[in-house]
Amino acid sequence: MDQNTFLQWGPLRLLSFAIPAPPGSITNFNILQGRSSSMNFKDALTGRRSVRRYADRPVGRDLIASLIEAAETAPSAGNLRAREYYVVLRPELKHALAAAAFSQEQVASAPVVIVVCADPSRSGRRYGDRGGLYSIQDAASATTCLLLAAFDMGLASCWTGAFDESMVREILSLPRRLVPTAIVPVGWPAERPAPPPGRDMTEAVHWIEG
Amino acid sequence: MDQNTFLQWGPLRLLSFAIPAPPGSITNFNILQGRSSSMNFKDALTGRRSVRRYADRPVGRDLIASLIEAAETAPSAGNLRAREYYVVLRPELKHALAAAAFSQEQVASAPVVIVVCADPSRSGRRYGDRGGLYSIQDAASATTCLLLAAFDMGLASCWTGAFDESMVREILSLPRRLVPTAIVPVGWPAERPAPPPGRDMTEAVHWIEG
Repeated sequence: MDQNTFLQWGPLRLLSFAIPAPPGSITNFNILQGRSSSMNFKDALTGRRSVRRYADRPVGRDLIASLIEAAETAPSAGNLRAREYYVVLRPELKHALAAAAFSQEQVASAPVVIVVCADPSRSGRRYGDRGGLYSIQDAASATTCLLLAAFDMGLASCWTGAFDESMVREILSLPRRLVPTAIVPVGWPAERPAPPPGRDMTEAVHWIEG
Repeated sequence: MDQNTFLQWGPLRLLSFAIPAPPGSITNFNILQGRSSSMNFKDALTGRRSVRRYADRPVGRDLIASLIEAAETAPSAGNLRAREYYVVLRPELKHALAAAAFSQEQVASAPVVIVVCADPSRSGRRYGDRGGLYSIQDAASATTCLLLAAFDMGLASCWTGAFDESMVREILSLPRRLVPTAIVPVGWPAERPAPPPGRDMTEAVHWIEG
């Protein structure tokens, strides 16, 4: 891909209509959906949530392409980019993926489902056994950038990690070299979940001073 | 941690001095280092680079804490946050880590080295064997957010993945449950590397249409 076409974020879309509040959701949210302008980095980082309910409205192919371009800005061991993306729009396959993900409704109901795969063989050719770890990291890092970019674009997504790997392989007819690592449903948000509980950081951070 | 203290990005620091151009670096860059204001999300995503040369200038503890707070905004399977952080400021340990990382100079020379660890036991208690994968993903996602936040704050970093795991465990006296997954040197940039080559996306993206 030409570097200059990276991250155009699709054409200008200014949609100012209000989203009807779904039952049980927080009502006073006001997300400017599909805006082409980018938000402040900190707001993207802190505002992103796992959203599992989507509006009944399609997501344009240009936006999907922009999401994957954003994913590809993620760091990658040796710049090998040991990751691939399956963009699933076919309804019966989305339902099959939801079944493989232990009936997680967000996978069936999303307008778009992106399955991120690691390619251990790609990093393994240079790094041997340790390439397996690198490919999982490559895929996880790309997934993270994809989720943040979706939020920045007004879209909602949910990293879905619990699924039967062999079922997903079969549904997508994946080549044997690929390992599906994340199922990411994407759509326009129909809920705005509260932030998850925080964490006692004293147990998570260890300072080793000079 | 109190959610309200998340991401304050440390106190206001306005430093407008020019960075002397190191030999061999691109000379016409102008990064406003340590600014408290956040950049545009897209700029953070596309501008981040792996930087391996750092200025001889310390990084404040408040900025390091902000980096880890940013890392903790990363998604996490079941919100278990199966990841921990070792902040290494002691020179002899940074040198030992560099040796464990096959003499990668950026690890020895950085003012701060943050080692991100996965905790498979933490996710394994809920998810069994698959928790191992989730903990690696948790750690990789946190590392990605940390790198992006560093760039947003004017800092430079480099995801260093190639190292001898058992040496790192021993150097940091890690508990057996932790797996070091990334060594991240952090400092003020003394170079601005060119973007890595792009990728032919037609081989990486597969569309399955409706």
